[in-house]
Formats: sequence, C-alpha cells, structure tokens
Amino acid sequence: MSIMGMCATGKRLPFLDILSDREGVGVDFIMQQVACGQAVIPFNPKHDIEKPVVIGKAFSVKVNANVGTSPDSCNEAIEKEKIIAAINAGADCVMDLSIAGDLSNIRRELLSVSPVPFGTVPIYEAALDLFKQGRDVADMEIGDVLKVMERQAREGVDFFTIHAGLLKKAVDLYVPSRIMGIVSRGGALIAEWMVKRGEENLLYVNYDKILELMNDYEITISLGDGLRPGGINDSTDKAQIHELLVLGELVDRAREAEVQAMVEGPGHVPLNQIEANMLLEDRLCNGAPFYVLGPLPTDIAVGYDDLAGAVGGALAGWKGAAMLCYVTASEHIRHPDIEDVRKGVIGVRIAAHIADIAKGNEKAWQWDNAMSEARFSQDWDKQIELAIDTERARSLRDSSMPEDEDICTMCGKFCAVKRTKEANSRD
Amino acid sequence: MSIMGMCATGKRLPFLDILSDREGVGVDFIMQQVACGQAVIPFNPKHDIEKPVVIGKAFSVKVNANVGTSPDSCNEAIEKEKIIAAINAGADCVMDLSIAGDLSNIRRELLSVSPVPFGTVPIYEAALDLFKQGRDVADMEIGDVLKVMERQAREGVDFFTIHAGLLKKAVDLYVPSRIMGIVSRGGALIAEWMVKRGEENLLYVNYDKILELMNDYEITISLGDGLRPGGINDSTDKAQIHELLVLGELVDRAREAEVQAMVEGPGHVPLNQIEANMLLEDRLCNGAPFYVLGPLPTDIAVGYDDLAGAVGGALAGWKGAAMLCYVTASEHIRHPDIEDVRKGVIGVRIAAHIADIAKGNEKAWQWDNAMSEARFSQDWDKQIELAIDTERARSLRDSSMPEDEDICTMCGKFCAVKRTKEANSRD
Repeated sequence: MSIMGMCATGKRLPFLDILSDREGVGVDFIMQQVACGQAVIPFNPKHDIEKPVVIGKAFSVKVNANVGTSPDSCNEAIEKEKIIAAINAGADCVMDLSIAGDLSNIRRELLSVSPVPFGTVPIYEAALDLFKQGRDVADMEIGDVLKVMERQAREGVDFFTIHAGLLKKAVDLYVPSRIMGIVSRGGALIAEWMVKRGEENLLYVNYDKILELMNDYEITISLGDGLRPGGINDSTDKAQIHELLVLGELVDRAREAEVQAMVEGPGHVPLNQIEANMLLEDRLCNGAPFYVLGPLPTDIAVGYDDLAGAVGGALAGWKGAAMLCYVTASEHIRHPDIEDVRKGVIGVRIAAHIADIAKGNEKAWQWDNAMSEARFSQDWDKQIELAIDTERARSLRDSSMPEDEDICTMCGKFCAVKRTKEANSRD
Repeated sequence: MSIMGMCATGKRLPFLDILSDREGVGVDFIMQQVACGQAVIPFNPKHDIEKPVVIGKAFSVKVNANVGTSPDSCNEAIEKEKIIAAINAGADCVMDLSIAGDLSNIRRELLSVSPVPFGTVPIYEAALDLFKQGRDVADMEIGDVLKVMERQAREGVDFFTIHAGLLKKAVDLYVPSRIMGIVSRGGALIAEWMVKRGEENLLYVNYDKILELMNDYEITISLGDGLRPGGINDSTDKAQIHELLVLGELVDRAREAEVQAMVEGPGHVPLNQIEANMLLEDRLCNGAPFYVLGPLPTDIAVGYDDLAGAVGGALAGWKGAAMLCYVTASEHIRHPDIEDVRKGVIGVRIAAHIADIAKGNEKAWQWDNAMSEARFSQDWDKQIELAIDTERARSLRDSSMPEDEDICTMCGKFCAVKRTKEANSRD
C-alpha cells in the first residue's frame, strides 16, 4: 500500500514518530495532511533514509540543495564532497542534477552519503543517453524516459522532478513575449522536443504511465515548472500561470493514483508578487506543497544570489511555500564550488527559519529567545553554540578577542547590555 | 535661511538638480517633499558633499554604512579604509560611530574622504570626554553635549543621531519586561544617566536648545531609537512604541524650527511585524523619513547578519523605510573588518534595490531588464558590467571558464537559453 493510502487508513509508519518529534505536532495530524495531499513524505523504501522529512505548509519550512556535475566541471569526488557539505550544513533534501559523466555511478555515490530524501530530474539522463549515442532530443520516446525512471527508482531515488505541465500552447503562444524565454533545463529540453516533433509534451500525454511507475516504487512527484520566469519582467505571466493550472490538474491525478505530489515554483519574482504567487499555487494546485527556487526578487545580484534568494525565500516561506531550494552565490555565472554549497545551505536555512518565526513556529521562537537570553547574560559560549553556524561564530569571536571577556570588540565598555545591567544593579 | 525654508519658498538650490537627475523626478516635487518634512537632504554647508541624497519614502531607498573605532579595536587608518570601502561599494550615507581614540582627529580624517552625507552620535564624544577626565556618565550636563555638537557641526558633520525620545517612564515601566533590555549604545548611556540622576532625559528636556543649534548649522536630526528591540521577543513592544510616540512629537517640533528630521527604527523584528512597524512610524511620526537598522528578522544568524538584515531591509524598504542601515556579517560577535564593510554595503544595496523593484521604481526595473536582456543574448561582458559588484562577477566568471564562450560552467550544452533559442531558430 502507498504512503498516502497508509496515512488515509490509519496505518502508523515508523518514520511518523520521528517527524512528530521534529515538528512538535501529533502523528495523526501528519497522517491527515499526507492523506489529503497537503503534505508529502518523500520516502523510497529502497533508500535508507535516516532523516525523513514532511513537507507541507502546516509544517516547518524545509530547504533543498542541488548538486551535480556539468559538462565543463565534471568531477564525481567534488560533487560527493558538495553533497556531504550540504547535509552537514543542514539540508533537509538534496537533488542530484548531474548532466555529465557516468550518471548512474555518480548517483550511487551521492545516494550512499545522503541520509535525507534524494531527488533527480530523470529527463536529464534520458537526454544524455541519447546524446551519447549521437542522437537528438527529438528522438526521445516515452519508453526511454520510463526506463530511466525505473532504473533510478530501483537505485533508491525518493523524488523525481517531472516537467509534465508545460504544454505546446503555452510555449507557442506565451513564451515569445518574454525577455528570458525558457530558463529551466528540463523545460527547455521538453520545449525543444515539442518544437522539433510538433507534438504535445510526451510527459503530459503519458502521465498515467508515469503515475503507475511512481506508485509501484513509492516515488514522490515534484511537478517541475518548466516555464518558471527567468527574469523579474517575466514573473507571474501567462506562460507561468498556464503551466501552473496544468500542474494543478496533474496534482489531482497524482492524488487519485495515490502518488505523493509537490509543485515546483519560481524563480525570478519581484517582492511584491511573491505573496500572490503563493496564493495562486495554493488555489490552483489544491494546497499541494509548494517547492520554490529562491525566489530571486532581483536579477542584478550576480555573486550574491544566495542573499537575494534568502530575501525572496523568507517571504515565500512565510506566505506558504513548504520548501525552499537554495540559490548559491555562483548562480548565473559558474558551477558552484563546495564553499558556495555550504554557505548556500546556511543562507536558505536562515530564510526558512525567518519564515518559521513569522509563522509563529514555537520551536523557532524558542531558539531565538534562547539566543537573546545568552546575549543578555553575556554568555559567549552559549551564543556560539546557538548560532546557526557554530564554527563560523567561533572563528569570528576567536579572530577578535576583547580585553574583558564578557563583551565583544564592537562596543567594549560602551556595551549597552553591560552598562544597563550595571547601572540598574547599582541603583 | 534653512534648506526646509528655502524649499518652502521655492528657492532652487544647486544640489536639487543633481537629485532630480538621480531620482528621475522633478525638482519641484523634491522641494515639496522637503518643505513638508516627508524627505530630508542632509547637507551641512561646511562639508563638501559631491554626492547629495534625498531621503524619503517617495524616493529610491537609500543605504547607510557605519564605521568607527572601538576600545578593543582602535586603528584610525583601518577605519579610514573602511569608509573608503563603503563609499566605493555605493553607500549613500556614512556614519562615524567611533568610541575610542582621538575622536576629533578620526572624524576629520573620515570626513575628508566622504563625498556623501556624514553622520555621528554626539553623545558618544560627550561621554568619552567625561570618561577621559575620570568622570561618570551621570556628570553629563546639557552644556557638555551642546559643546560637542557645535564642535562637530563646525567640522562639517551633516546629521546627528540624538536619543531624545526615550523617557524615564518607558525605561522604568516597560524595559524591565524585555529579554534584551536596552541594546542601543546611546540609549543605554541616556538610561544610565536617568537612573543615576533620577531626572528626565536631558536631551528631551533641552530639545529646544538642540534645535536652535541644529538650525544655526543646518544639521539634520536623526531621532535615535534608544529603546529599539534587541531581540525578536522585544519587538513592537510598549517600550518601543512609547518612544516612537515621543519621536513623533519631536519630529513636529523640529519641523516648526525648520530643522530637517528623520526617525531611526529597529532593530530585531520578525518578518510579520515589519509592515506594521513601517505603518506605525508613518502615522505616529507624520511621514518623517524612516531610517532602519536591518531590521533583523531572526536572532540566530550570527556570522550571517548581513543576509538576515537584507531580508528584513528589503521588506522594510518596500513597505516605506526611506533608508536602510547595513548590518555586517560580524554584528553581535566582533568589530567588523574592511571586507565585512564592503560586503555589508553590497548586501544592503541589494535589499534597497529589491525594495525599489517592488515599489515599481522605473530606473530599478530598467537595470534588471537590461541584465535579463544581456543574459538572453548570452553577452557575458554586459552581464558582468551590469552586476551589482562587477569585480566579484568577473572574478567568479574568470575562476571557471567554459569551453564554449557563450555559456557558463553551470549547464554547458544543457543551457536552457541557448537550447531554446537554437531549437526555435532551426524551426
């Protein structure tokens, strides 16, 4: 029986207790949220997940980190180090977006060090298989895609991004008026296939077959937004909303097939459009968990897109996004390095935590208040321990030690906390 | 005649043309905004300002960077390098918050390299003068403060932070229930003075004398928020709002005296309270420009408060803050170094720009759309030129060059933009 089915019929799965502890909510509530599709628990039985997660608006905001080889930067060992760095920095989920090298081998290596849910975009491997045979995207048949999906499912991948929602009509009619066209790699491959074949999206046409396979292997679908805006000018446009409507239809069909489904979202979105985007997804996709990339509320922050993404992500999480995908500082300019990955995860975790605070999450508030108490009591060891990146906090403190150990080098004897406490105790 | 008076009577000042060009609005509109106190132009005639700014909700969001010595880290040359780094990174205003060394000499050095408005907190110098004589804060008389203000005004300081709004009642009645007490250095000095003397805030009591001096030297007042929250638990509390009400009264009195006034704001504020804070300041302070520190929507981001501050600052700017003060990555843990300052300014500029985009600022949109166009045309030189930090963008690109020069090392031949364009051109 599927996870959705088990939750619907009251079958208590072992990972539910872990999730209940972590979220501070009851098991029954989690089961109810999963049963009706408002939350998902990516969990392929073939993958040994030690840190399961429940992703949904009613829970704490989760974060995902992408790694993977590229044709110009293909080193399996480095990608493995990146995924380890991402997990150590606290990523709730990871995705392998490799597009070069021996994908099956890379995936096996990355899966072996991932105690968290692990996702892929199967169409990348289907395309690469063709390219290696000297063939073209247009030669892709649904059988090629299903074969890759089955292989990856058997290897233990927990969730697949599937770009089944971008249809020929949207690509023909709405994309031409954009500045940035299509910026999703999967979306671009599907659009190219449709342009060259003159046919409707093969993932949409064969969606029932895909669902059957997902159900057989208990894979969670992450419905890809192939038409996500690639610049703020293109945000919330007809192409994007047309696809979102289709994704809503695909969410419903996934639920009928007892396949867990979440929806991927933008992308480049001005700050004043983020709340509307969260509402639209909630309404058009019947409350399916929204998994957003950033969003980036500006296009000009090259080299600082981790910061820009944190701004958009915090607001998105507060307004309903269930999971934020990190954007690294190298986005738009190069393949990220290991430090980009580590800092990217910390940045998006801060954004998710800011959202949790704004949503009134009790555990999040306890953490912040504990930090304030440590600050007020001038307990520097405690402050460092409570910092989101203990190692960095310690190294900053060590790099600049004050003469008096109870203050820091910013204010010295002008420390407001210290002066106020002393003045009042003397009083 | 004062700047406010000249704006009210239609006298066109030379810097208004520069501001009109920069903001893309008419001179008359700027004059009207300044005349009624909705905007300020800090401009001490004794300071040779090459890059004047107009600060107000109706204009693009401005950014400020603080530098200054501390008792544990007192090196004048380094502070000078910091202010140069801040200005090169695009700070609209700077403040010298030095609290150690020869303040007058430091200020002269920093002023000499500041083509932008320059602010201070005169009470620091008044307190330090006393400490150097072995005396206590409680010995401070209004004459000591006015003497320092006059000295600094003659040296060319453009705006003063004056903590005249925290009253005995708020400190006695409301501060005790906070976790963090008082975290403003100026606020803590005043509170200590009030506790030790049992008297009302000397800056409040003698506000008319201060206004007279400000008017004589054309100094802009920045009304300090001595009771700003130092942790999210204390945000928007009685202490903060009591002070804000008093600041509103002081804004009105400044306007009557033809002294330009802006209001300083928090601090640590959860994301869901930021909009309300902007509204409250607007209402209680009759639309005076709001100059906020961060705000920081979480307390646990030690080592990453530049990022947390960008999240809060972007939302604050969108919802009405006129100027954002940067928070560096070293906040709460050490005195910032030069690189902290440089990166801090870039981060807060991104936040201000995100706010401008959300407010529909035309120049901001042109910049982002130019970047999108450069991306779509795969013009890497143009992308680097348009990046907020050209040097960093170039170094990232150079560190990881692709085989084909028209793409980057992230996606290689899977580049969505390139594939889509090629597929469509072949079609």
